[in-house]
Amino acid sequence: MRAVQYMSVGDKPRVVDVDVPEPGPGQLLLKVTAAGVCHSDLAVMGWPAEGFPYELPMTLGHEAAGRVEAVGAGVSRIPVGEPVVVYGPWGCGVCRMCARGRENYCPHAAGLGVFPPGLGAPGALAEYVLVDSERHVVPIGDLDPVRTVPLTDAGLTPYHAIKRSLDRLVAGSVAVVIGVGGLGHIAVQLLRRLSAATVVALDVREESRELARRSGAQHALPSDGSALEAVEDLTRGLGAEAVFDFVGAAATTSLARSMVGRDGDLTLVGIGGGTVEVGFESVPFGSRTGITYWGSRSELIELIDLAREGALDVHVERYGIESGPEVYERMEAGLVKGRAVIVP
Amino acid sequence: MRAVQYMSVGDKPRVVDVDVPEPGPGQLLLKVTAAGVCHSDLAVMGWPAEGFPYELPMTLGHEAAGRVEAVGAGVSRIPVGEPVVVYGPWGCGVCRMCARGRENYCPHAAGLGVFPPGLGAPGALAEYVLVDSERHVVPIGDLDPVRTVPLTDAGLTPYHAIKRSLDRLVAGSVAVVIGVGGLGHIAVQLLRRLSAATVVALDVREESRELARRSGAQHALPSDGSALEAVEDLTRGLGAEAVFDFVGAAATTSLARSMVGRDGDLTLVGIGGGTVEVGFESVPFGSRTGITYWGSRSELIELIDLAREGALDVHVERYGIESGPEVYERMEAGLVKGRAVIVP
Amino acid sequence: MRAVQYMSVGDKPRVVDVDVPEPGPGQLLLKVTAAGVCHSDLAVMGWPAEGFPYELPMTLGHEAAGRVEAVGAGVSRIPVGEPVVVYGPWGCGVCRMCARGRENYCPHAAGLGVFPPGLGAPGALAEYVLVDSERHVVPIGDLDPVRTVPLTDAGLTPYHAIKRSLDRLVAGSVAVVIGVGGLGHIAVQLLRRLSAATVVALDVREESRELARRSGAQHALPSDGSALEAVEDLTRGLGAEAVFDFVGAAATTSLARSMVGRDGDLTLVGIGGGTVEVGFESVPFGSRTGITYWGSRSELIELIDLAREGALDVHVERYGIESGPEVYERMEAGLVKGRAVIVP
Amino acid sequence: MRAVQYMSVGDKPRVVDVDVPEPGPGQLLLKVTAAGVCHSDLAVMGWPAEGFPYELPMTLGHEAAGRVEAVGAGVSRIPVGEPVVVYGPWGCGVCRMCARGRENYCPHAAGLGVFPPGLGAPGALAEYVLVDSERHVVPIGDLDPVRTVPLTDAGLTPYHAIKRSLDRLVAGSVAVVIGVGGLGHIAVQLLRRLSAATVVALDVREESRELARRSGAQHALPSDGSALEAVEDLTRGLGAEAVFDFVGAAATTSLARSMVGRDGDLTLVGIGGGTVEVGFESVPFGSRTGITYWGSRSELIELIDLAREGALDVHVERYGIESGPEVYERMEAGLVKGRAVIVP
Repeated sequence: MRAVQYMSVGDKPRVVDVDVPEPGPGQLLLKVTAAGVCHSDLAVMGWPAEGFPYELPMTLGHEAAGRVEAVGAGVSRIPVGEPVVVYGPWGCGVCRMCARGRENYCPHAAGLGVFPPGLGAPGALAEYVLVDSERHVVPIGDLDPVRTVPLTDAGLTPYHAIKRSLDRLVAGSVAVVIGVGGLGHIAVQLLRRLSAATVVALDVREESRELARRSGAQHALPSDGSALEAVEDLTRGLGAEAVFDFVGAAATTSLARSMVGRDGDLTLVGIGGGTVEVGFESVPFGSRTGITYWGSRSELIELIDLAREGALDVHVERYGIESGPEVYERMEAGLVKGRAVIVP
Repeated sequence: MRAVQYMSVGDKPRVVDVDVPEPGPGQLLLKVTAAGVCHSDLAVMGWPAEGFPYELPMTLGHEAAGRVEAVGAGVSRIPVGEPVVVYGPWGCGVCRMCARGRENYCPHAAGLGVFPPGLGAPGALAEYVLVDSERHVVPIGDLDPVRTVPLTDAGLTPYHAIKRSLDRLVAGSVAVVIGVGGLGHIAVQLLRRLSAATVVALDVREESRELARRSGAQHALPSDGSALEAVEDLTRGLGAEAVFDFVGAAATTSLARSMVGRDGDLTLVGIGGGTVEVGFESVPFGSRTGITYWGSRSELIELIDLAREGALDVHVERYGIESGPEVYERMEAGLVKGRAVIVP
Repeated sequence: MRAVQYMSVGDKPRVVDVDVPEPGPGQLLLKVTAAGVCHSDLAVMGWPAEGFPYELPMTLGHEAAGRVEAVGAGVSRIPVGEPVVVYGPWGCGVCRMCARGRENYCPHAAGLGVFPPGLGAPGALAEYVLVDSERHVVPIGDLDPVRTVPLTDAGLTPYHAIKRSLDRLVAGSVAVVIGVGGLGHIAVQLLRRLSAATVVALDVREESRELARRSGAQHALPSDGSALEAVEDLTRGLGAEAVFDFVGAAATTSLARSMVGRDGDLTLVGIGGGTVEVGFESVPFGSRTGITYWGSRSELIELIDLAREGALDVHVERYGIESGPEVYERMEAGLVKGRAVIVP
Repeated sequence: MRAVQYMSVGDKPRVVDVDVPEPGPGQLLLKVTAAGVCHSDLAVMGWPAEGFPYELPMTLGHEAAGRVEAVGAGVSRIPVGEPVVVYGPWGCGVCRMCARGRENYCPHAAGLGVFPPGLGAPGALAEYVLVDSERHVVPIGDLDPVRTVPLTDAGLTPYHAIKRSLDRLVAGSVAVVIGVGGLGHIAVQLLRRLSAATVVALDVREESRELARRSGAQHALPSDGSALEAVEDLTRGLGAEAVFDFVGAAATTSLARSMVGRDGDLTLVGIGGGTVEVGFESVPFGSRTGITYWGSRSELIELIDLAREGALDVHVERYGIESGPEVYERMEAGLVKGRAVIVP
């Protein structure tokens, strides 16, 4: 089959021929119907050879939708033919964290050689992809796999970050979303659907602010000092109950820090290299600053249910598998609007 | 192998010879080191033939400890030789409830033919027992299996009930435990270890009240009208923040109802046929009355960790497998002190 | 001033002349701008003389909006002239429950002679009303007092009931509202605004079902056996995550009980005399059945914030104070649509 | 009356004669029975004149116990003669945060000129102290005021920090306490009483480690690299579920950061000038880093209830009011063991 692979450190991704895998006991083989292409792959392909954590060559793609083609021994809940999406942050399955369904925080996975598809295990930018357990797929029925596949990461990641702060996003509260790209525009929609908070979206680009407005943000502003004033006005000087930074660069984390209020939550989601210095002179009393990673199994199930009722409008661009390498180039050049999805 | 089976409705349990099972894909075979005998089996053996939910004959025993003897294809996390206990309320593993780790409330299990060992699937009162998935065993290291096995039900059931109410069991609160038997005496220990509540234990038998005191209850009283006065005194007429009824008979549910306070929790755990009528003239404002069933996977893991630090003192009586039928007779006659455990 | 009073048990309410009260230390005097008339007053006026809990004559009306006319010594946060609504379920202010802001569950209030206005203290169906503390008013700015005043009870009561269950009303969940009257039609709007649950509204009257649809309910059905089937279909036989019964009659509590699912919440809000029998054969595993009373101070603040953003559409009928007695007659006859509000 | 005052910036505290205040409407006058002396006063007295936030001279002392001597108009719940302690972080009383009982995070207090006694308002190192509202005192019955008064800050501050993380301090978890001084030794006792976590206490001084052991810590270690190894061993490399830093210096915040695990909580309580840099390369996935301030009203009530059952053993040194200035000198020199308490 054809697959988009990262061959060796420093290389560009290439489309190559590889064998179709066989599902072992407990595993499922999916015929890929859609695979999302994510910015974080660019970060991975920028890592140095020393300490590079994954075996190469590696098929890319950690957002996967497909139809179950074959199942290994012991698979009993998910039938062949079922259209599904893949839950990516696989855990060990037996530890306390996994037992709570929070496999995304499983502290044992990497040590056991368990990696997400496309981030250590063979990914979804291929005609077929293996899934290690039936618990890692979620049936999607007749949802369009192309519009649904971004939910597995670009949707699940903000969903998880938002759910952590949902108890403070009561009526009268303010939630700030910094960066209205692939994740951010879904975050705005989720905040509007899941909470009564007023949503303020910040982005340097006017077209992204326009996307934020279409996604339901009550306010969409340039991410600069004027935004800080606007948030202070909106909150009568008290700061926001929750700030989500989907960029995570030094400039945005600094802005985020200045906007959060007492007892508020600041969550870094974007891996832009920025940090927040937490101390008594730098953040408000009672505030919490955290970083999140992907989401939990039940959160993906909930998110698919949300998609089923038509509550989400995910912007996608479609490409064939042979265009995989080109997609990464376009993404690097900032030319992709919304989420790029490969349809093999 | 030898196994204690319930052969047909109305029959007495008998020790018979059955084949040692083979683990299929994903399954584990345990050599049983200890198996708890539970009162609820008596209830099951009292059900009429019409509508009897399980296939017979059935090996009894839903509290299991063992050593992994063999594993089926695809089992990768739990090695052969590992000493474990079994998580009993198996769910489908893939639904929203299971994804949260709350398999005990999986609404699909029974419909899929998934039953706990000893309550539909072959149980642990035998030399070997099959477990359907590695996620359903919890390693116990060098803990004594005989003293540990009751935790899988007699411990997990109160642990789950208590965790639901833990947020209201703050310092200054009062928790009432009705019925200090196999589950109740562990409930008292758990409440003392997990919360700052004052624990009031009620039982008709003085020896059970004595067990409650040894288990840490600050107050142990006969479960009658005098107890109601005592709880009113202790709570200055306000009622208890949480009441756990491990008997669940008409007399105790009525007592439980009269003791719970505003915004309090009343939890029925015992299946004694009693009920609580919830309405504006019968329960306090803000109170919640619920029934619980067993516990979750992560709760069993937590409970085993608690046992590991020596925090729990479970009363057991040991018997050989040939004594299985006799144990049920002794239990019915009220002659078993603490938990009866079969050691094959 | 003119006031609608309940003079003696069994009497009809009458409009009489009474003195304008003076605010003592800590108190506020409001010039009433709007006062809601509530069904529960009919219940109060139906109580027998023996054990009647309030002193008579008593000015009716426990939903109050007004402008601060004068304040007693020590009032420092709320200036004269401020337009406000009144938080009704006054507590002692110093106990643990009050310290958490949950004055509606204060167990000391009645014993201390502290009663809500219109339910023991002089009520709001008058030209002026006294409030015992500045913590019991919430500024409403330029919101219309007539449309806002029902939020203090008809809004706050469902808001509180819904917030108790909000953590289970995730995407993909189902919430059932039984009874789409004054409280129920706000409940539907709140559920849509605060959660991602699918809302099923049940009412025997087609016009109420129509109101439910306009309020945002995805499904509005007659409250009979066909509704049970519909909920079973919608939940694939699993039952609803939350059921709110705003009628509370025997027929609706029975329907409510049959619709709630495992680990679900059943909340009785309506005082229709019905009850729910909680036991292992009558309710699903893990479910909780509770009754709620009014709401908390911070919940009223949140609700006013929600009104401020225009999220709520409360149906009202306006009357002058002289029409007070007639309003109760119309209400008894079922002729009032939405909430009747007296504008003195 | 005699009072220990901070006269002007840069001055030493002095004992002076001042007038006994009169309680205005809503206020209470306490005859002080005990007043704690806190390290943070030294920090305040080190602040520069520019931007100094309080009016001087100011009577010091923000931990107060006393007997109600007189009450102003409108005080109705707390009788003259009642022995009480004072809740210090006074809020505005009417905002959303205060309505939830979280006055310690009231964002309006300072702007309204509302300050805690001894930190803006006249403090408790005097024969009498004024309290602005009856909601700010908690009756202590026959508890010893000298041993109880430190609970109002040295107890309440760790209690609040711990309650924020209590849901993750399940059986099998590890909680780290850095700095076993006035707050830290109470934190250890609270963690043992309120949770099932294993408590690891770190301090550079052997005598403090000994105090930690007596307070119930299962492990007490020097706060250096060896402690990191020990925590890694105890947690099998996974890190602690919660780390509380009561020192907050650069060295301890760095240690704290290295010890927290995935989805864990790091709470800075000590104002030692250290900070924690939160970013994807510096803290584990899912972790939250926050700072807390004092505690809530209901938390103080709970803590007094805990003291009532004898669960807390607070180390105190007693001094007369004339020794006030000397106590600050001894504290600065590190000569005070436990909490210094002035008994006028």
